[in-house]
Amino acid sequence: MKSLSAKQLLSSIRQSQQDEPDSGILRAVNHGFGRKSLIPLWTGEGPLKTPDFICEAASKALFDGETFYTWQRGIPELRQALADYHERFWPGPFSPDRFYVTGGGMQAIQVALQLLLDKGDEVVIPSPAWPNFPGPMRMMGAKPMFVPMVYHDRTWSLNLDKMRDTIGPKTRAICLISPSNPIGWVASRDDLIAIRDMAREAGIWIVADEVYARFHYDEAGKTGKRSASFMDVCDQDERVIYINTFSKNWAMTGWRIGWLQAPVVIGQAIERIIQYNTSGTAAFMQKGAVAALQQGDDFLQMQLDMAVECRAKAAVALGQFNNVSFENPRGAFYSFFRIDGLTDSLSATLQIIDEANVGLAPGGTFGPGGEGFLRMCYLRDPDSLEEALARLSDWLRKG
Amino acid sequence: MKSLSAKQLLSSIRQSQQDEPDSGILRAVNHGFGRKSLIPLWTGEGPLKTPDFICEAASKALFDGETFYTWQRGIPELRQALADYHERFWPGPFSPDRFYVTGGGMQAIQVALQLLLDKGDEVVIPSPAWPNFPGPMRMMGAKPMFVPMVYHDRTWSLNLDKMRDTIGPKTRAICLISPSNPIGWVASRDDLIAIRDMAREAGIWIVADEVYARFHYDEAGKTGKRSASFMDVCDQDERVIYINTFSKNWAMTGWRIGWLQAPVVIGQAIERIIQYNTSGTAAFMQKGAVAALQQGDDFLQMQLDMAVECRAKAAVALGQFNNVSFENPRGAFYSFFRIDGLTDSLSATLQIIDEANVGLAPGGTFGPGGEGFLRMCYLRDPDSLEEALARLSDWLRKG
Repeated sequence: MKSLSAKQLLSSIRQSQQDEPDSGILRAVNHGFGRKSLIPLWTGEGPLKTPDFICEAASKALFDGETFYTWQRGIPELRQALADYHERFWPGPFSPDRFYVTGGGMQAIQVALQLLLDKGDEVVIPSPAWPNFPGPMRMMGAKPMFVPMVYHDRTWSLNLDKMRDTIGPKTRAICLISPSNPIGWVASRDDLIAIRDMAREAGIWIVADEVYARFHYDEAGKTGKRSASFMDVCDQDERVIYINTFSKNWAMTGWRIGWLQAPVVIGQAIERIIQYNTSGTAAFMQKGAVAALQQGDDFLQMQLDMAVECRAKAAVALGQFNNVSFENPRGAFYSFFRIDGLTDSLSATLQIIDEANVGLAPGGTFGPGGEGFLRMCYLRDPDSLEEALARLSDWLRKG
Repeated sequence: MKSLSAKQLLSSIRQSQQDEPDSGILRAVNHGFGRKSLIPLWTGEGPLKTPDFICEAASKALFDGETFYTWQRGIPELRQALADYHERFWPGPFSPDRFYVTGGGMQAIQVALQLLLDKGDEVVIPSPAWPNFPGPMRMMGAKPMFVPMVYHDRTWSLNLDKMRDTIGPKTRAICLISPSNPIGWVASRDDLIAIRDMAREAGIWIVADEVYARFHYDEAGKTGKRSASFMDVCDQDERVIYINTFSKNWAMTGWRIGWLQAPVVIGQAIERIIQYNTSGTAAFMQKGAVAALQQGDDFLQMQLDMAVECRAKAAVALGQFNNVSFENPRGAFYSFFRIDGLTDSLSATLQIIDEANVGLAPGGTFGPGGEGFLRMCYLRDPDSLEEALARLSDWLRKG
């Protein structure tokens, strides 16, 4: 017998994999998953299952035999539908050849990072940020260079000078999540121009996560058409890669289907990376995605209305507490709130699961500037959200 | 306007992505895809669509709302089904905790390589080999170290001494594809013991692609239970990772669902990698995979019978030609045949598409030792295969 000890096995995997911490979101989920009547607001997921018209399109394709290998870049029909969808909301025209179907927004990030980053390279990214950006960077041996967002007077802002100062000779890209997960900040058109100019000057790439573009709120708390986009201020043939997903808009989180938009000329490199990661996305799922883009407006509007209602409820509930501080988010669907004196957000998260039966995500897992905060996904059926807010308020009162 | 030239854009992606050649299989497919009445034998895919009992299980789960984020490692039901399936064919017992559901066999390889390889690391791999092993290694900055398989007297064999000599201080793993894609060679139990001992001595990992384990042929050309496996000769807690997929056995190539088996203790590292690549696999697809494992024996047997019949047909057709040389494969479902004087297998492949309307894969793309050969997937409905063989025979006669 040649069984090895845990230590022997673990020490023989790649160093960066040994060093990488678990995501605090996963730790919360693993702590509370399956707990009776827990209200899970820890991940970025609404309460609705995928609508039937999408499931029907996918199911029909499945039984029709669309079960063979398909185009690595995505089926032509979906790439065309993506181009059409973009032309409805962003300044085009868009060639279908700019779009690549991926196994989720996460896979789109992975493809973009594999395209750009070598060991030792640096990536500038405002923080707090969704940990699934810096996590894969570290795994590749690249280094996320965090630009701390400024939280002052209950308002988040990006210090552009600080961002500029963070760019150095090893910097290969700037990653921007706008609307931001977790903080709900939304880059203005001027922010985007400034970042674009920095990237141009340094000759580096922009990786633009615009997953929450449709979830953004005006001063009155209503949602408009979309948030400001690099597509408004950049040429199509410059160094910008866009990350997006079907997950949020059309309640398809569990499907794992997203897309990437990039200059046509790097298509062959992207296709190779897709080939060596997933070898494409199921054609029958892509048929569901086509239906989402072509027939999904009403469903998305219903989700946006729910987000508006829930955002207001969350602001009222959390606003009762003098020791709780937050900016009402301008985009996405998270309340990111600080509790005075809180120094260990992961412990608090686990405690809230145990004591209030509500699942949140610990702010600390979102990187520098996140500790002391908790993230709550408020995209929920309003009754269930009210119940969660009541439980959370009780817990805050006791604390 | 700040549009960049193709050269400017391409030169600013990662060097290893600029250098990587396209897979010759993809080049053939892109050349011939959609051509009228072409018979495509270029990829590893049978003619049958996924059977209805699998589609029904997936479709039911889809409409039942299994469309939310799920366990990163795979749903417990599928991991249990994988353990049960393994106990029917390989020496167990197997804990469900040894299994991780991935977005296809390709994704399982990607996860294994990300777990093990840093820039500059070396991996020993017999060649010819499926290019989707060395491709992602090179993309990571690691180096595939090819051990040329010996082709002598129409028989492939592995020179174990040469393999041992290829292991050096930078070697992190040995990858073995057995049954082999493309050459159809199958490692004997003695081969596996020898390779295991080399890996133990060097303290390195084995990545065992046993995707074609159920497709193997005895002296009479019949299929038995399965090919010899590292599971026969290795402990569960040593450095072995197994790659597998639902694609081949159950006609699910287009689904992109597979699995990885590894020591339980590295589970958390694997979960993190899955998190940062795909964030799991659709739960509704996993329900289809459960059905495949639990109710798929008859379907697989039908595929094995078809493989036996088609393998014999291919051997007869190619055996007519004095200038064509091959070993009748002992596993998988490819004819890998050499044409005397052929020096550019990619050109020949494109020519055969144009002139014979048959899609093959060029041997050169499978690495050292592959040039001069062509690969033909013979898992096909027998009538269609006969037609393809007739066309190919005509082409060979003219050549």
